[in-house]
Amino acid sequence: MSKNVTIIGGGVIGLAWTRKFLEKGWNVHLNDSQDISAFIEKEFNGKVKFFHDLAESVKDADYVQECGPERLPIKQDIFKILAQHAPTHAIFASSSSSIVSSEIAENNPAADRILIGHPFNPANIMPLVEVVPNPKTSKDTVNTAMQIYSELGYEPALIQKEIAGFVANRLQIAFLNECYYLVEQGIIDAADLDKLVLNSLGLRWSTVGPFEGEHLGGGAQGISHLLSGVGSNMNFQLGTPDPTKAHILIEQTEKAYGVGEENWKKRSEKRDQLTEEILKLRKQTK
Amino acid sequence: MSKNVTIIGGGVIGLAWTRKFLEKGWNVHLNDSQDISAFIEKEFNGKVKFFHDLAESVKDADYVQECGPERLPIKQDIFKILAQHAPTHAIFASSSSSIVSSEIAENNPAADRILIGHPFNPANIMPLVEVVPNPKTSKDTVNTAMQIYSELGYEPALIQKEIAGFVANRLQIAFLNECYYLVEQGIIDAADLDKLVLNSLGLRWSTVGPFEGEHLGGGAQGISHLLSGVGSNMNFQLGTPDPTKAHILIEQTEKAYGVGEENWKKRSEKRDQLTEEILKLRKQTK
Repeated sequence: MSKNVTIIGGGVIGLAWTRKFLEKGWNVHLNDSQDISAFIEKEFNGKVKFFHDLAESVKDADYVQECGPERLPIKQDIFKILAQHAPTHAIFASSSSSIVSSEIAENNPAADRILIGHPFNPANIMPLVEVVPNPKTSKDTVNTAMQIYSELGYEPALIQKEIAGFVANRLQIAFLNECYYLVEQGIIDAADLDKLVLNSLGLRWSTVGPFEGEHLGGGAQGISHLLSGVGSNMNFQLGTPDPTKAHILIEQTEKAYGVGEENWKKRSEKRDQLTEEILKLRKQTK
Repeated sequence: MSKNVTIIGGGVIGLAWTRKFLEKGWNVHLNDSQDISAFIEKEFNGKVKFFHDLAESVKDADYVQECGPERLPIKQDIFKILAQHAPTHAIFASSSSSIVSSEIAENNPAADRILIGHPFNPANIMPLVEVVPNPKTSKDTVNTAMQIYSELGYEPALIQKEIAGFVANRLQIAFLNECYYLVEQGIIDAADLDKLVLNSLGLRWSTVGPFEGEHLGGGAQGISHLLSGVGSNMNFQLGTPDPTKAHILIEQTEKAYGVGEENWKKRSEKRDQLTEEILKLRKQTK
């Protein structure tokens, strides 16, 4: 018998989840406090049940994937309703990118069934889901969530302890901060920096992760060689971007890549197509 | 008439340059203070002229690519000999990853013809060369170096001002620092972090650079939307890795990927093959 998932929130992320669960044969209930646009209703007509009432939408749920607004009180209220109205075996995952689930689960009797399942933009094709339990989350909850995301075709990554920004966004911010600093300081143009990354680090980290990259970069001795000495030439202070100089980043980026809806669609499609082709390639060479 | 390049240093980087210049029909002089191994002599026999004497090796050079030890006094001595013995039109590039060319060119009468041309590991297939002039480097020198690297099939990136670590290594270190911190703190395992990056940021930055990535991530409004507010949930302190905990990184990496020469060769080849296939793919979708 196929299982029931309730998706809360009919935005970009909620719809990406909806499509994935549908593909794998789940019964999908889509809850949104507002009416879903005619366009979306048409795509999912007959395949998805639409709800305005949250309690009603989760009463048969095996899994709930919340994609509501990124505000703690709203999420706390939502998850209390889930605890009251969903079956006692149901698991409640938040797609939040920035709120930890120990806060969402505060004073919630179902805290052991609550965790974060954070997808990575663009959620329709990126394989990553960050699975972040809170100290009260049960092992069963974690294992089931990991398994469900795997079955959906994602590559879930287990974050073992809660931390602000989780892992992917922390790494992204560490990298972007230095990008912003270097462009603000006139060391390199935004478009040249993009090309530089495409032709070096991006290419490396789409074939091997940072640890394997260092391990191979160290030669036959591996990462221990790098961590023990060669890096000694690399002792310098990284930069801090200046918020008052953000206009420089915006001007150079808009100049390089244009602006507007149509331009955005065209470029996003090109990115997505190439992403999918690289994913295919990686599967072949596995 | 084909042009003359002198490569100084027969290590991994020097040999990668040697092959690239040979492929494009340059006459290559390879200088190394030590005897080149029989293996290398066999590969290049009849195609490359080998030298022990630096002055002798550059007397007809149009371009010199230095790949000597990463020590300033050694490089200063080498570049003084270049200034004395190479033709007055010759350009002198250092492959240095960490020494700026204003230091290398100190008290050197040919300072206007000296710059950095820093390749990215693995240099035989990575497209990036960072071209970093010093304040005395002439525009002609920069333009010629950029053109030569392009003709060799590289994608040179112009770094407009000298800065410690240049750009690629600064970005890499910003990223790796946070990777090291997160693994040391037990937030995530090294192998899981690798998978996470492969399935998110690596994939993104092999299809679009960080600025275009942010520009598309901001939707039709682009990067200005992201820089103006959404990031406000993302205010947190990044970590600092602890050198006394490096053993954790080494243990987890070696456990995940093994150690030893044979293992290294096999994994490096797999990485290189995938890298070349992604590069082909990108050319097709350009």
